[in-house]
Amino acid sequence: MTELRRATPDLYPSRGEPSRGPSHRLDPVVHGAWRPDAPISLAQARTFETEGFLALDALFAPDEVALLQSSAAGLLADPGALPSDVVVREPGSDEVRSIFDVHLHSALMARLAADARIVDIARFLLGDEVYVHQSRLNYKPGFDGKEFYWHSDFETWHVEDGMPRMRALSVLILLAENTEHNGPLMVMPGSHRLYLACGGATPDDHYLSSLKKQEYGVPDRLSLAELASRQGIVSIIGRPGLVALFDCNLMHGSNGNITPQPRSNAFLVYNAVSNRPERPFGAARARPDFLAARSAEPIEPARGRLTAGAAEP
Amino acid sequence: MTELRRATPDLYPSRGEPSRGPSHRLDPVVHGAWRPDAPISLAQARTFETEGFLALDALFAPDEVALLQSSAAGLLADPGALPSDVVVREPGSDEVRSIFDVHLHSALMARLAADARIVDIARFLLGDEVYVHQSRLNYKPGFDGKEFYWHSDFETWHVEDGMPRMRALSVLILLAENTEHNGPLMVMPGSHRLYLACGGATPDDHYLSSLKKQEYGVPDRLSLAELASRQGIVSIIGRPGLVALFDCNLMHGSNGNITPQPRSNAFLVYNAVSNRPERPFGAARARPDFLAARSAEPIEPARGRLTAGAAEP
Repeated sequence: MTELRRATPDLYPSRGEPSRGPSHRLDPVVHGAWRPDAPISLAQARTFETEGFLALDALFAPDEVALLQSSAAGLLADPGALPSDVVVREPGSDEVRSIFDVHLHSALMARLAADARIVDIARFLLGDEVYVHQSRLNYKPGFDGKEFYWHSDFETWHVEDGMPRMRALSVLILLAENTEHNGPLMVMPGSHRLYLACGGATPDDHYLSSLKKQEYGVPDRLSLAELASRQGIVSIIGRPGLVALFDCNLMHGSNGNITPQPRSNAFLVYNAVSNRPERPFGAARARPDFLAARSAEPIEPARGRLTAGAAEP
Repeated sequence: MTELRRATPDLYPSRGEPSRGPSHRLDPVVHGAWRPDAPISLAQARTFETEGFLALDALFAPDEVALLQSSAAGLLADPGALPSDVVVREPGSDEVRSIFDVHLHSALMARLAADARIVDIARFLLGDEVYVHQSRLNYKPGFDGKEFYWHSDFETWHVEDGMPRMRALSVLILLAENTEHNGPLMVMPGSHRLYLACGGATPDDHYLSSLKKQEYGVPDRLSLAELASRQGIVSIIGRPGLVALFDCNLMHGSNGNITPQPRSNAFLVYNAVSNRPERPFGAARARPDFLAARSAEPIEPARGRLTAGAAEP
């Protein structure tokens, strides 16, 4: 394994000692300068800057959403066809919780990850060329889907993967109806402007358990209560096809799901090419590539609609 | 222990064999005849009959709600002062999940249970004198409150406690704000008109585990999915003081709670005196009195407001 370099000072220390309380974000939220030909409106850019997330309706046509649902269902139906490490099961059951690297295992998901309607926005918001840092499908099965506890993605990506700065974002694409009842994503609007360092050490190979149930890299309860009290909590609910972009440092989580309606969402994480991971800032070893790509090339945006043909590379 | 008698045939068989699918309710929902001097309007009575539940706002004044919250907080703060069997902890932690028999351990809760504003409605809907079959506080702590899986109370009360007919109801009183995010009660409107028998046997002393996490007396997934698809799901959300009455056979449950806001609710279960429990219809032994009172006398409704004086009997 190549020795990973570190070129950037640790601007966001975390773990290893008791929680220090919130500190201020040291990076911009919107890295690009808005111009009339930007892929989102000025009001939308300001919403993303202020709230840390932005919901976009009707980015994809209904038949494109149907293709994505079909592709996701195909991956879920045959997890044995995938490398075992990219398939994460629910704690205490054999049901699939997440599948990673979907853009490497499905031609349609690869085409989605390169889609200009998403990539152009990511490039504008991050002010740089971008690549896919991580992709995944999160399935929250009906009846016994388990919660995802509160976390900032960036805290983990920084400490465990060596992402130097806050210059990445997630694109959430709803593939099932997300209702107030089936464990939708909850976010604390505006929380991306603060950084909550987390106490506690990072066990070796922490990801093997944290993907099922996170017990390290979680903020302390007092900080979370203060943040929720100040910022409030909003659920991302909507019909299949709704797209929500959110900043890498937005505090988010979701409750479990006892309803019969499974919740199924695709996540694509884009990182600025200038912000590639270095040596982890708080862990002995870097996590595998399916959690933090290190070799990805800048994406060339693909124009036009998603078609079934994309599934035949 | 006195041998319990059984005088009523088993109209609602359950457990002991594979699930039989839904059957029809054989009892009325509203047992009383509405008249202009009834304690709820004709429209409200019809809502209860059709939906199986009814929300009532402003039944109690803000200072009365504050008294109830204070009483509940006092019980929660010192569970060691209560008999240990009425205090149920969360699965996997020491946090209190429920406290039973609160009307026997708090003068204010006793006064609440007799309050004419509630009891008059219960007497009208059940068409009989009533008594308190069960009382409890359900605390869903912040951060790690666990779910209550789907169930009809009546199925358990019939099989495990010997309640003969569907002639009981629960009164839910919100003591904290119940939001869409902190695991509010979810109900399937209209589900009280069907009876879902449950498969599987009933272990001895099942209640010792079922109060933490129910694994028997739960409907099968196919029946639940059909019921949810036909009836939909509604959350009971609102400010402290909101009162919701719901029929003993309404399908309900709730998700967990990762938000910092605890969810705290009082439940009072009223049963018609003509519907007192007999020998259990599907268990070897009856459950303890704190789960199914057998000696309670008809309640004499108490008129007037809740006052701090009620806390000094």
